[in-house]
Amino acid sequence: MQQPYFFSDYRRQVDEALEKLISQHSDDSKLRAAMRYSSLLGGKRLRPILLLASARALGDVDTRALLTCAVSIECIHAYSLVHDDLPAMDNDALRRGQPTCHIAYNEATAILVGDALQSLAFELLSAESLALSAETKLRLINILSKASGAAGMVLGQAIDLESENKQLSLASLENMHRKKTGALIEASVIMGVTAGFNADKHKQLTQQEHQALINYARCIGLAFQVQDDILDIVSDTQTLGKPQGSDEAKNKSTYPALLGLKGASEKLQMLHDEALASLQVLASRNISQLEQICRFIVSRNQ
Amino acid sequence: MQQPYFFSDYRRQVDEALEKLISQHSDDSKLRAAMRYSSLLGGKRLRPILLLASARALGDVDTRALLTCAVSIECIHAYSLVHDDLPAMDNDALRRGQPTCHIAYNEATAILVGDALQSLAFELLSAESLALSAETKLRLINILSKASGAAGMVLGQAIDLESENKQLSLASLENMHRKKTGALIEASVIMGVTAGFNADKHKQLTQQEHQALINYARCIGLAFQVQDDILDIVSDTQTLGKPQGSDEAKNKSTYPALLGLKGASEKLQMLHDEALASLQVLASRNISQLEQICRFIVSRNQ
Repeated sequence: MQQPYFFSDYRRQVDEALEKLISQHSDDSKLRAAMRYSSLLGGKRLRPILLLASARALGDVDTRALLTCAVSIECIHAYSLVHDDLPAMDNDALRRGQPTCHIAYNEATAILVGDALQSLAFELLSAESLALSAETKLRLINILSKASGAAGMVLGQAIDLESENKQLSLASLENMHRKKTGALIEASVIMGVTAGFNADKHKQLTQQEHQALINYARCIGLAFQVQDDILDIVSDTQTLGKPQGSDEAKNKSTYPALLGLKGASEKLQMLHDEALASLQVLASRNISQLEQICRFIVSRNQ
Repeated sequence: MQQPYFFSDYRRQVDEALEKLISQHSDDSKLRAAMRYSSLLGGKRLRPILLLASARALGDVDTRALLTCAVSIECIHAYSLVHDDLPAMDNDALRRGQPTCHIAYNEATAILVGDALQSLAFELLSAESLALSAETKLRLINILSKASGAAGMVLGQAIDLESENKQLSLASLENMHRKKTGALIEASVIMGVTAGFNADKHKQLTQQEHQALINYARCIGLAFQVQDDILDIVSDTQTLGKPQGSDEAKNKSTYPALLGLKGASEKLQMLHDEALASLQVLASRNISQLEQICRFIVSRNQ
């Protein structure tokens, strides 16, 4: 499937903002170069795009402030990739078709790059120059820090590592993914509507709409992972930009391993349908981009 | 020198708050246990104590909110120790008289513990339940994230790693320490007065007082490091809780290596004197605890 037309537009804007914000301190340290290497070279920018599309669901919103929010979530995502790739973690040498940070630089630098990218996310969201109300900024920081930490993404990665060479139940696998990748995908959507709402009470979501949006995010987060698992079997290293077959090589529990390739495809379709159904609760909003993101996630080939 | 009387009182309060805030999510994951291990076992709590004493310089302030701020800076400090001890970094097996996190658990867990402790710091400062104005919370988050990141603490550690087996000039050594440990010590002081000031304009510091306080923090931050370097030579492993002589073993640039032991002691005394002189600009404030902290830092034996 072709990418929706707005993807490349959003991605270009995010890449420009990312480059600018990472380089705002004009030092020429190796650390700063490695931060740029780890965040600017490639990447689908799915989380920033989701954030921008979610904000857009509420109507017209100030793009510059939104881009800073989008960059902050990409900083967290980029840091998690750099740390996950480390030898003590998933020990991956290839990412986005490039040597991973600890290969291109060294392990110590990769640890520090991740640490600094995390700090940067919160520095950006707390900046005085960010044109959002103080309450909105605090809410964004709270959503992002919770989603990143020991009850969210980091816990998911810890569970994943403990699960290696174990056969997980479908429920445990889902719990792990819901934290490892789901937490940040959910945060992208909720941060988007939070920033989009900012101080305008008229735009605010009803409780029911909010719940529907969380369910949408939960479904596409899991769908993203199911498709990842499927691609790891049916795709090839060049298309993926990372080694094909690495789940099996690491003896990881995956949806195809638990459900078979056909069962995994059916699961993917179910999640896709549920995500789109959830969005219907928000039919009076501007949800077209969120629908297109859902369709793209289940049909992407990398 | 005996510790000032208020140290143990502040430390007890910080330890209780730390225990409570880290355990607020009642999960029994290995990750959470390792987070407790890495932050609750021992530690001088210098940064939280500095934060509390700085807030106190402005008069009576709500202790509960201040303790949350104090815990947030200790979370950042604890994360930095866990990551600095990793094999790819300083490769230390002993810290505060205990096996370091990656020895007690494993490397992957230690990386994740650091990551989660960093997120927790910002989660605490952005919590709705924290009884400070939204503007104050944002300022605290901004100070802490800047001090932690690629222009502060993390940059200092990166410079330190690049400097191994190199002879640094005194200016380069000072620049490195100013970032590696100084940035967070400065942040402790500035966060303390920011939280202590909160929304009460009457307490606010003049520009001159603010500058004097930053100079005080800079001096005691450096003094702390000079004394650390001296203790690494003249103390013993049991007293230090970490291996004595490790700077020399790692061929690190230190103040005694550059200035001799006598020169380093003189430098220490100079920094002590300058710190106390700076505080005189704030003589109308409640600076007695800040003075005692300065005296303690240069005379401590661990």
